[in-house]
Amino acid sequence: MKKLAIGIDIGGTNTAFGLVDENGDIFAESVISTEKYKYFSDYPKYIDALCEAMHALCDSVSFEFELIGIGIGAPNANYHTGEVVTPANLWRFSPEEQDPREERRVFRIAADIAAQFDGKMVAVTNDANAATIGEMVFGSAKGVKDFLMVTLGTGLGSGFVANGEMIYGHDGFAGELGHIIVERDGRECGCGRKGCLETYVSATGIKRTVYELLATSNAPSELRDIAYKDFEAVMVSTAAKHGDPIALEAFRYTGEKLGRALADVVALTVPQVIVLFGGLAKAGNLIFEPTKKYMEESMLSLWKNKVELIPSSIQDKNVAIMGAAALIWQKNA
Amino acid sequence: MKKLAIGIDIGGTNTAFGLVDENGDIFAESVISTEKYKYFSDYPKYIDALCEAMHALCDSVSFEFELIGIGIGAPNANYHTGEVVTPANLWRFSPEEQDPREERRVFRIAADIAAQFDGKMVAVTNDANAATIGEMVFGSAKGVKDFLMVTLGTGLGSGFVANGEMIYGHDGFAGELGHIIVERDGRECGCGRKGCLETYVSATGIKRTVYELLATSNAPSELRDIAYKDFEAVMVSTAAKHGDPIALEAFRYTGEKLGRALADVVALTVPQVIVLFGGLAKAGNLIFEPTKKYMEESMLSLWKNKVELIPSSIQDKNVAIMGAAALIWQKNA
Repeated sequence: MKKLAIGIDIGGTNTAFGLVDENGDIFAESVISTEKYKYFSDYPKYIDALCEAMHALCDSVSFEFELIGIGIGAPNANYHTGEVVTPANLWRFSPEEQDPREERRVFRIAADIAAQFDGKMVAVTNDANAATIGEMVFGSAKGVKDFLMVTLGTGLGSGFVANGEMIYGHDGFAGELGHIIVERDGRECGCGRKGCLETYVSATGIKRTVYELLATSNAPSELRDIAYKDFEAVMVSTAAKHGDPIALEAFRYTGEKLGRALADVVALTVPQVIVLFGGLAKAGNLIFEPTKKYMEESMLSLWKNKVELIPSSIQDKNVAIMGAAALIWQKNA
Repeated sequence: MKKLAIGIDIGGTNTAFGLVDENGDIFAESVISTEKYKYFSDYPKYIDALCEAMHALCDSVSFEFELIGIGIGAPNANYHTGEVVTPANLWRFSPEEQDPREERRVFRIAADIAAQFDGKMVAVTNDANAATIGEMVFGSAKGVKDFLMVTLGTGLGSGFVANGEMIYGHDGFAGELGHIIVERDGRECGCGRKGCLETYVSATGIKRTVYELLATSNAPSELRDIAYKDFEAVMVSTAAKHGDPIALEAFRYTGEKLGRALADVVALTVPQVIVLFGGLAKAGNLIFEPTKKYMEESMLSLWKNKVELIPSSIQDKNVAIMGAAALIWQKNA
């Protein structure tokens, strides 16, 4: 009988889920609102609604199949415990519910969903790790035992695989390459510290770099016409493709920061492949060329020209659902 | 029957080896000269001499035992291939043997020794990793699944264990925390680059720091009496214990560099424990206090006060032999 896994991507607005086979093909998918269940006390109703919608999705499939498990990608998800802990944008205490100063919120999401699916295997991890496992099971890193995946979105996420296994770290929350400090007393980061890699290398980071360059340089630039609040990272790619000097310099600078950080990561973990993923990675050579150049320049000679830097091959597919389902397929391979 | 493993520590001067039981106790040990076999063409004779001495050691034991395998710690050792590749101080080409410009030298040491021991299991890794496995099997990190070991000797070596497995990296040469760059255009490193962590944090690093401080500060110091070439790192500890301001500042600065680097390592790999090992680590609180302080100060809040920084517990034993033997015991646990 055909085997399928459910992959669930829990975002702040919506929760998308789909039935995924061993090749990463999605046979059916659906979505429910996450936002509708925004408060802490709404969480049990959210689980009921999600499980009901998943049962309906399974019933909608025209052939018989075996459901082998459910994988979930969610913010602040702990692989070891199956919990989601104090997510910033999910199930917050309402003003009536609790003093916001003591807000550790723990959601036993794996157990809660398993309870409504006959105790099927349910696994959770955070979004960056789910994407990493998706890349390992279905994408560019298929069969690669030691690799690093860098997700360049609003922030910078990372997933690290060694000896063919995802490294979740001692506490199950895995690593945060975006929060290594690359510039002492550098740019303010959302984490409360300064100079984190993601304040330079991310959609937000390149935007900050452009604004710094617009201030320090007199070069003409089409980017001078855009207000900070209207600015999107993709505008930098567009301008760079027109030969805009500010945009080109912003990519060079972003690649320099990323390439040097990657050389340090290589020194510590020696991956075979580094996969770049997410919005900024779509800029292609604009970001790959400077990153590669500075990575090789900074690399210990032992590893020079030995680590591949490649784009994700599942980039344009529904990675979040595929990656979450891959959590299950990985164990059934 | 009692089971024993042989642990071999190959240094530039001597090769020490011993018979080690499952508790890390050494039942018999011996040594041969490495230096005597310094050239490339001497390597086969070295292997013969070593194997002969090991057979003699086994024969010298008064009770019957089963030899379960042979573990080797050696510079530039590749765990995956069982080879030692182009070691700096071992088996170099003699002036007559080859043009020194093309000197890649590969020694299939695991296979060569197994051939003289009835095909027994032989495993090799570098010195820092052997010490790490020793710590995991016999020492402070017993039972710890995710930890980092930092060896502070002439340089800075590292070993990284995740999910209970040593991370050897894609190429089998494992990681080199000593060669992450912590100061762009900083101190010259033996690797040909600048600003590597080990140029600041190691016996050599603290010596360089003292000399910088002697130049920049007017503070009185007993260290002003010592010529650079006579200077040993242990003199900094002695002076610091006398309250010497230059020595105390040198430890603070060393701890700052190490602590900040460790915070970045934690962000990426999330170990439960970090073990400090080697000469500088013996300075106790002089190095642990500033390292801990700056590590916590630089740490992402998620992991603040959650990672233990502890000294090695096999520090004063024959770690090199125990660690090499642990390569075998690890597989028989």
